Amino acid sequence: MSPSERIPTVEDVRAAASLLRGHAIRTPLLEAGLLNEELGCRLLVKAECLQRTGSFKFRGAFNAISRLPDAARACGVVAFSSGNHAQGVAAAAQALGVRATIVMPEDAPAMKIANTRAYGARIVLYNRLKDDRAAIAQALADKEGLAFVHPYDDPDVMAGQGTVGLELMEQAADLGATVDAVLAPASGGGLVGGVALAVKAERPEAEVWTTEPEGYDDHALSFAAGKPVAIQIGKPSLADALLAPQPGAITFAVNQRLLAGSLVVSDREAQQAMAAAFRHLKLVLEPGGAVALAAVLSGKLPVRGRTIAVVGSGGNVDAEVYRAALAV
Amino acid sequence: MSPSERIPTVEDVRAAASLLRGHAIRTPLLEAGLLNEELGCRLLVKAECLQRTGSFKFRGAFNAISRLPDAARACGVVAFSSGNHAQGVAAAAQALGVRATIVMPEDAPAMKIANTRAYGARIVLYNRLKDDRAAIAQALADKEGLAFVHPYDDPDVMAGQGTVGLELMEQAADLGATVDAVLAPASGGGLVGGVALAVKAERPEAEVWTTEPEGYDDHALSFAAGKPVAIQIGKPSLADALLAPQPGAITFAVNQRLLAGSLVVSDREAQQAMAAAFRHLKLVLEPGGAVALAAVLSGKLPVRGRTIAVVGSGGNVDAEVYRAALAV
Repeated sequence: MSPSERIPTVEDVRAAASLLRGHAIRTPLLEAGLLNEELGCRLLVKAECLQRTGSFKFRGAFNAISRLPDAARACGVVAFSSGNHAQGVAAAAQALGVRATIVMPEDAPAMKIANTRAYGARIVLYNRLKDDRAAIAQALADKEGLAFVHPYDDPDVMAGQGTVGLELMEQAADLGATVDAVLAPASGGGLVGGVALAVKAERPEAEVWTTEPEGYDDHALSFAAGKPVAIQIGKPSLADALLAPQPGAITFAVNQRLLAGSLVVSDREAQQAMAAAFRHLKLVLEPGGAVALAAVLSGKLPVRGRTIAVVGSGGNVDAEVYRAALAV
Repeated sequence: MSPSERIPTVEDVRAAASLLRGHAIRTPLLEAGLLNEELGCRLLVKAECLQRTGSFKFRGAFNAISRLPDAARACGVVAFSSGNHAQGVAAAAQALGVRATIVMPEDAPAMKIANTRAYGARIVLYNRLKDDRAAIAQALADKEGLAFVHPYDDPDVMAGQGTVGLELMEQAADLGATVDAVLAPASGGGLVGGVALAVKAERPEAEVWTTEPEGYDDHALSFAAGKPVAIQIGKPSLADALLAPQPGAITFAVNQRLLAGSLVVSDREAQQAMAAAFRHLKLVLEPGGAVALAAVLSGKLPVRGRTIAVVGSGGNVDAEVYRAALAV
């Protein structure tokens, strides 16, 4: 069940892009004139909430499952996830004719559980405080011969997520924009790591930052420590997609080398970014999908006169949470 | 101030597409696997809420203003609109370096008035019940030599809006889809007429339907009468973008010839479609932008086994109205 320790490169990301062509949506890179004016910068938003299953997770799952040996695909796959990886694995498995079992926390957003089931996956629920999801998944893998699809610490998953960065750089060039900095959220660090591989290969001088919710800033702490460290999980966060307690081994190896650092945002800043995406971009972002935009809007890095790209990584949010964000 | 009576053709739409390239966004054509499964059809949504200014109106305005003689452009343009055409004209004029004056109802959504002003336009407010907006615009045109940009009854405006249909057909082909029916909302009928020119040229057997809000079904009544007739404005509608009381002369000439008919939806059906776009597509649609989707979701035409495309024409909605729709 442990993933290979191979560190992916931009060549893996390019290979994933070939494989994903015609399967994943090439999501648009959007901007809003009024927002640019307000911020005094050019702000480009990669609308990955418009991806199949409502988040970027379809990319990594499809790439990883496609590359499994035939025998493994015949047995099926297992994954654990608070929701977006669950839907990504379920939909990718369905598209590839592979059976999927997903281990999900009971308190995941209702929409994420319902959608995962609708993509044809078998759901196994667990209690986030009492149960060990990895152990549950491992037991299923052992008993039924299922292949484990890691949410981030897997070179194929990471390469798949990195196609977001490849597209972003191509689309920015099409718009005549030269990107100075790219921001993407981190839970385990697979998305931002894959994006960094793509962005740095194209333009080494561009900064790549990750963004984390308050209380779950394990990347910030790990960069400071020079090794992956776990946070003490204390207060809750609205960003249910970003609650991994520590960076992955493979993702951290990439991110420590390529990232400029981590920017931390509050729940309120994430909500304000959700409202700005509603107002200016007509995009539905979930709290975890809005943190990169939130870091820019709340002034966490200097943007004036620069071209900044952020990944709006997902839009799977229950109506009540969304309504509350618009009322902030 | 009266527009030319020339009836546009698909050649005008193609010419508009050339002119708009690099200025308007080629908005994505999206679908959601779970929604397709629920409906038993393939449903494609042209996400025109992601267009510059948050609605398709930028297209027609940019095409029309671009084609004004230099002398007219030097004086500036005037338009009246409840909001989306206002923003479209203001942003297109700004992009082309032309001064814009917009006559807007005092009760237009606050976001639409604020954004129109932010695009650099001068705003003149009027009372929807007491004042004659056409007379106000005419007086300004006469006094200041402004060129009038009609919201729909103008061949250049209509041709610009029709580029939505051209793109939709190209994008459907890229997805391997053959469209059986296309639905687009109508206020004065410029969008659906332009779309019909494009769709019918590409595939004459495809049905093109318009969709109207209850109480503002002037296209349905006019098709029945065989000539443009005005509705009696009685009850209010959430679809503030679709309140024109009667079809245009030019738009009706096209729509009577090319359309299969008009489908009428209630406020509640529009709200349910907004919620479905939130949940399945991660798109913010305003009530008027959701009526075509609403017609499909509420079973106004047979869809099972067919490929249906709808235009999600705009997303400029105040947070309170949106929050209410998600709570329905």
